[in-house]
Amino acid sequence: MNGVTTCISFMDISIDNGFWNNRQRINSETTIYAVWERFKETGRFDAFNFDWKKGDPNTPHLFWESWDSDIAKWVESVAYIVAKKPDHTLEKAVDEVVNLIERHQDKNGYFNIYFTVVEPDQRFKKRSAHELYTAGHLIEAAVAYYRATGKDKLLNLMRKYADHIEKVFKIDHSAAFTTCGHEEIELALVKLYRTTGEKRYLELSKFFIDSRGKYSEVSWELSNARFAQDHLPVREQSTAEGHAVRATYLYCAMADLALEYGDKELFAACRRIFKNIVARRMYITGGIGSSAAGEAFTIDYDLPNLTAYAESCAAIGLAQFTRRMLYIDTDSIYADVAERIFYNGFLSSISLDGKSFFYENPLEIHPELLNRDVSVNEGKPGKQRFAITQRKEVFRCSCCPPNITRLIASIGDFLYTSDQRTLYVHHYISNKTETRLNGMLMEITQQTNYPLNGNIIVTAKGNGVGRIAFRIPYWCENYSFRVNGNLADVTKKKGYAYISLSPQKINTIDIVFDMKVQLIEASPNIQEDSGRVALQRGPVIYCLEAVDNGGLLRDVRIDPAASYELVPDNDFGVPVIRTTGYRRNTEGFETNLYRPVSGELDRVNLKFIPYFGFANRGESEMVVWVLKKSNN
Amino acid sequence: MNGVTTCISFMDISIDNGFWNNRQRINSETTIYAVWERFKETGRFDAFNFDWKKGDPNTPHLFWESWDSDIAKWVESVAYIVAKKPDHTLEKAVDEVVNLIERHQDKNGYFNIYFTVVEPDQRFKKRSAHELYTAGHLIEAAVAYYRATGKDKLLNLMRKYADHIEKVFKIDHSAAFTTCGHEEIELALVKLYRTTGEKRYLELSKFFIDSRGKYSEVSWELSNARFAQDHLPVREQSTAEGHAVRATYLYCAMADLALEYGDKELFAACRRIFKNIVARRMYITGGIGSSAAGEAFTIDYDLPNLTAYAESCAAIGLAQFTRRMLYIDTDSIYADVAERIFYNGFLSSISLDGKSFFYENPLEIHPELLNRDVSVNEGKPGKQRFAITQRKEVFRCSCCPPNITRLIASIGDFLYTSDQRTLYVHHYISNKTETRLNGMLMEITQQTNYPLNGNIIVTAKGNGVGRIAFRIPYWCENYSFRVNGNLADVTKKKGYAYISLSPQKINTIDIVFDMKVQLIEASPNIQEDSGRVALQRGPVIYCLEAVDNGGLLRDVRIDPAASYELVPDNDFGVPVIRTTGYRRNTEGFETNLYRPVSGELDRVNLKFIPYFGFANRGESEMVVWVLKKSNN
Repeated sequence: MNGVTTCISFMDISIDNGFWNNRQRINSETTIYAVWERFKETGRFDAFNFDWKKGDPNTPHLFWESWDSDIAKWVESVAYIVAKKPDHTLEKAVDEVVNLIERHQDKNGYFNIYFTVVEPDQRFKKRSAHELYTAGHLIEAAVAYYRATGKDKLLNLMRKYADHIEKVFKIDHSAAFTTCGHEEIELALVKLYRTTGEKRYLELSKFFIDSRGKYSEVSWELSNARFAQDHLPVREQSTAEGHAVRATYLYCAMADLALEYGDKELFAACRRIFKNIVARRMYITGGIGSSAAGEAFTIDYDLPNLTAYAESCAAIGLAQFTRRMLYIDTDSIYADVAERIFYNGFLSSISLDGKSFFYENPLEIHPELLNRDVSVNEGKPGKQRFAITQRKEVFRCSCCPPNITRLIASIGDFLYTSDQRTLYVHHYISNKTETRLNGMLMEITQQTNYPLNGNIIVTAKGNGVGRIAFRIPYWCENYSFRVNGNLADVTKKKGYAYISLSPQKINTIDIVFDMKVQLIEASPNIQEDSGRVALQRGPVIYCLEAVDNGGLLRDVRIDPAASYELVPDNDFGVPVIRTTGYRRNTEGFETNLYRPVSGELDRVNLKFIPYFGFANRGESEMVVWVLKKSNN
Repeated sequence: MNGVTTCISFMDISIDNGFWNNRQRINSETTIYAVWERFKETGRFDAFNFDWKKGDPNTPHLFWESWDSDIAKWVESVAYIVAKKPDHTLEKAVDEVVNLIERHQDKNGYFNIYFTVVEPDQRFKKRSAHELYTAGHLIEAAVAYYRATGKDKLLNLMRKYADHIEKVFKIDHSAAFTTCGHEEIELALVKLYRTTGEKRYLELSKFFIDSRGKYSEVSWELSNARFAQDHLPVREQSTAEGHAVRATYLYCAMADLALEYGDKELFAACRRIFKNIVARRMYITGGIGSSAAGEAFTIDYDLPNLTAYAESCAAIGLAQFTRRMLYIDTDSIYADVAERIFYNGFLSSISLDGKSFFYENPLEIHPELLNRDVSVNEGKPGKQRFAITQRKEVFRCSCCPPNITRLIASIGDFLYTSDQRTLYVHHYISNKTETRLNGMLMEITQQTNYPLNGNIIVTAKGNGVGRIAFRIPYWCENYSFRVNGNLADVTKKKGYAYISLSPQKINTIDIVFDMKVQLIEASPNIQEDSGRVALQRGPVIYCLEAVDNGGLLRDVRIDPAASYELVPDNDFGVPVIRTTGYRRNTEGFETNLYRPVSGELDRVNLKFIPYFGFANRGESEMVVWVLKKSNN
């Protein structure tokens, strides 16, 4: 396949300062421990002792079988953290989990807590039971831990499990279903293949991918095939459908296999689906899966703000999908989306202190509305299903927190790809790494405070052969590249600026991406956002919170003629933006809700904060999409 | 109690031409027959043969016990129709129903199909079973049929039933609950008292009203007391809560009793609640109960357009509440709300041809969104609960259609009240009637095409003594009154213009209410409507439909500087309004959903139709609240 590139692993990249260094520090010092504690408190670690039974006090929840996967993602996160900096406490904890897995794994390789402790006769009988999903996460953890530490015990256990899965599903066909109700195993098997070199795992992944959408699955409780992307064979799919996490995990594996097999038909399906997401089904924050019902994609342009589900795991899945597409097709549309996700819909999922998380990432919050007692309506106590106003430390189904920790720890994976003669720079993050161009070793450094500003200094030490290609971010209208002090001759292709290195020991490339404040409009097809604009600076989308601006934020009008004051903010790591706008006041509406338009507006000061930082100062009304004073 | 007035009954009013004459003709010639047919087809009439049992083919639905009430409201509607113009076919059908009721009524007076046929041992054991609700509607029907025809069989049967209810609830206290889970009996008993003169019925109504909110009701399945207005004793209530139909039927009875007993505390509660509705919980269409979940009021200012429930029966209930308040307090706030309901959220509930109905009356329709298959999300087939884009001929729970027919047939009840020296004119409808002022008989006529325009000629024949007070509609900024050709000396009080008649045989009063097109804004507290305006002319709210204007209507901008062309329209009976506006086009959004604002707008022609006429030309996108080009 043309255009194939290789990723530089995060393990070979040192993110030494700047925005993400700070985030990774919080992740490794605070978040990983906080998640550990919460998982201990909720019995998730104890579950690995296999002395649970259904109905015990502190009984695990309806997805008990996937608790294994919560721990697996935590293990994977630890692997990514200790790969960069030793942490014996964390490593010891992982080793203990691995020992428990070894102790309780079946002779035949099978490992699942629920289907060993509670329903051993139901193994591989229930398609929606997350068994292969859980297996996939355990495999990912095994691969990560082996690569990080060289310890191969878990890897070997999981190879045995994978062998068992191959036997049951591909050789004996003795399972009650062919493909899992929740994709994950497929991408994990590709990882297992790449680490072990054992092609059977790749072929098993291909077997699962090729089978999806072709068989009616008897044990599948949900009636609608789209929920698990079963509506069509994967090569015939063109739209992002169903449960958004399931969907993106599938697309990751499809892209992996397209690469491994040079499968152009599969890649074409991936590209169609990706374009459907970007052009019709994605929030400005990069969030996807707008519907809480089913945690799912719905129809084109159905992107409500207040009820936006936009699960953290789905954003992560989409980011991982973009990364895999990039290896096949160096087009900035992929890293643009990853960047949109990183600085907005992903980063919003974790509190600034690193201790609490959003499962859902709404683009609008009205506490009164969300917190209202709907028991009067439903005949039972409780809030709205989408009553999300604050981050939580742990969830009953707590898939998101360890997914967040593993992405932060391994974000370096997104930075670079290379082919024989070109290094591709996808993201702007202070770091050091090495690569080979035309066979010659080269040391690469980026120095930048991005996204605080758009200035980046890249140095390439070594024989100046080959090229470096820099992604020109989608939001950037004006930019400049200076190579060794001189304005560079840039070739632009598919969103990348290609610069040929000078044949000298050190090439220094000064990049300026002009990071002005922009007012963004959504397509008229997104009727939710009509008449409204979002404020964006660089990759960061901003929002208004009542804690700064008072309530009734949907009635605030931004003045497009007003100037913007950037005020440094240490908590956010990017500036807050002060400007002026307008709002109506409620005077005259005490006894009536409706009246002829008066046209009177009060001038008000506005303070925008980065969207990712919302809900860090207590429960507060919030909006991303703001009225514009002159509505044209 | 001060300010008490008496209603002129619709039976004494002849609505001889104009807008409502047309509607009443459709009602008596088409709608009452259409509802009859649908009720026959669905087994509602057969049910009165008492040969059903649970589980039979064509088994009645979960509210079987309230099917009696569907027929009762149909009987009541027939009564109002035959009161004005004989219809032997309808009258014969009613007589047959009455005979069936007589045949199957218990010796003790009890009558309910479900609790006789299916669960006879559960009588008055289940508070939410609508038994007293059904009894109330039967009583209303009996009163109406007696007053219309002089036939007293049903009235006597229902007196017997009311006596039984008194015994069970007030004397023996042998029921499993004290107050019904769905109010209705209370207002019906007041009617029964007024027709029979039997004060026990009034006292029984008062017993039910006084009991509500004071006892915890064991058999009440729903946990939240507000659903059935049980959260507080009625005299302590200040906000409209819970199921909106239940609520308004309760408020009707509260107002009735406030009048009958001169109960100022009860009236004060009614007035607080009414003000809460008008100032915080009512759509611009007069619709109330914004939430489909529970068909209920939610919190202040929670008035979503797309998911507006705004049940037809709730609008009717609110209108009936305003009428009762008016008898105690001649303030235009009541008839203003009734007018808002009549020409908008009530009239929308029935198709122009009179054959189909809305149960819910949304203020915005997006067929694609509402019709989307959500089985992918819910794991079961089906549309959104609020998937309302078209009127239907009958509903499983078909309370609305016969409620609509009875209101149209009896709308004359809303027109006039009087006290000894003043006739109060609340609505402008062509009609003839008689009244006594200072003891002298006077013939009153209104000639008007209202709401086609705001010109009304009122003549008062007889000795010109006393006054006529005219409501100045809330929407009217400029008006004039000429008495016998001369500009009148008008005294304005609480929204009414008081005119003293000249001592001559005929007084002619020419009224002009300037009916210009207005752009209406909602309170900033209704965040849903921020940045948007509604177009109103006279009492009629307008909307845009895709069938006239193309889709993406939430993105259309009205130009407040543009002129309005009124185009006569026979179907609607009021003009459609043509004007120009703006919209963005979707060019440039093919591959991206978001971009920096371009400011480009296309000028477009717009055609507004009256809201009440939406969805009469096939399924179509619709909006009431439209963006305004200059958003100040």
